[in-house]
Amino acid sequence: LSLVISTLGNPAIAPPAQPCLAPVQWEGRTVVYDHSTGRNTRASMSYDGQNQQIRVLEQKRGHVPCKKYFEYIYLFQSGVMFQIEQVTKQCSKLALTQAWDPFDIPSNSTFEDQNFIGGPGDMIEVQEWSDRKPARQNEAWLGVYTVKDCYPVQETYTRNSSVTTSTRFFDLELGIGDPSVFIPPPTCQSAHPERMTSDC
Amino acid sequence: LSLVISTLGNPAIAPPAQPCLAPVQWEGRTVVYDHSTGRNTRASMSYDGQNQQIRVLEQKRGHVPCKKYFEYIYLFQSGVMFQIEQVTKQCSKLALTQAWDPFDIPSNSTFEDQNFIGGPGDMIEVQEWSDRKPARQNEAWLGVYTVKDCYPVQETYTRNSSVTTSTRFFDLELGIGDPSVFIPPPTCQSAHPERMTSDC
Repeated sequence: LSLVISTLGNPAIAPPAQPCLAPVQWEGRTVVYDHSTGRNTRASMSYDGQNQQIRVLEQKRGHVPCKKYFEYIYLFQSGVMFQIEQVTKQCSKLALTQAWDPFDIPSNSTFEDQNFIGGPGDMIEVQEWSDRKPARQNEAWLGVYTVKDCYPVQETYTRNSSVTTSTRFFDLELGIGDPSVFIPPPTCQSAHPERMTSDC
Repeated sequence: LSLVISTLGNPAIAPPAQPCLAPVQWEGRTVVYDHSTGRNTRASMSYDGQNQQIRVLEQKRGHVPCKKYFEYIYLFQSGVMFQIEQVTKQCSKLALTQAWDPFDIPSNSTFEDQNFIGGPGDMIEVQEWSDRKPARQNEAWLGVYTVKDCYPVQETYTRNSSVTTSTRFFDLELGIGDPSVFIPPPTCQSAHPERMTSDC
């Protein structure tokens, strides 16, 4: 508890020498908040940093008539992403334009803060890191990770002034329960090259 | 730990009958992320919901030449806000245009989710509530609060499509250490009616 007191009102704590190393394989849930649309998208995620692959299973919310929910399988080593409609298994195969960007803290990151989330007697300690550089006032990436074991809590990305997303992570467990989640279903062998929309 | 397993992959947990009651007086730190500017503003906060007053002390970050940092004292019962420059104590007195909006979960809120933030063996359980209504797809407010004792973790507001802020809370402690933080300094007796800017 002494650390709680020492950081309160004392923002100038000594930065750690190095960011922690985030776990390489985990499963959990995410909420992605898209600031341009105001939408929160909830999903289950399997994250395999070892093999640079991510599987996202969108979570159904409420009863929006004829709205589609998708599964996404990102295979960065192959440079492809599969989008699979959850009911019909209709599949689209798309080229990945982004490079692999793991959920971790790059070694050249800037230490921003260390603090406790939660209330008295019910807290987790986290560190915040960013890509802020002295010559640039604002950061394009801010990551919040637990001090113990370095699990992701939140990441905020500003790709340009209008496209910003915040991803919150929770219910995280180490490892991949079923590696077959990264294998696209048979419908993806004759996949369409166009992205499907979630609206009717 | 049984709850962790039961919520994983089972998003349809039974919603609680009522939101929890957030603490009425606390002190801690905040980061406000303004999505329109991409800026993170860090501050210490004293929150007194009992008397509808909030004191915000901006935290200096790095060495930005001639940038000003402010203290803000919001007195909602008087309908005024004092803005005090931290070095010179120069003071502006401004009318509050917003109504009092406590850091809590309104009783008519919509339950969104319950989950654990952090990693295995180092977690806090939180609930998410919003003002989402069936007739409106997106929420304008989303609040994340701890299940134990109902401390705020994060609040996201969308005032309109272009003005969105996310506030994260941490290092929270119950009560107000020094109630005099809500008393404006003597320089506020001859306060200016214009808001000061933080730039040079």
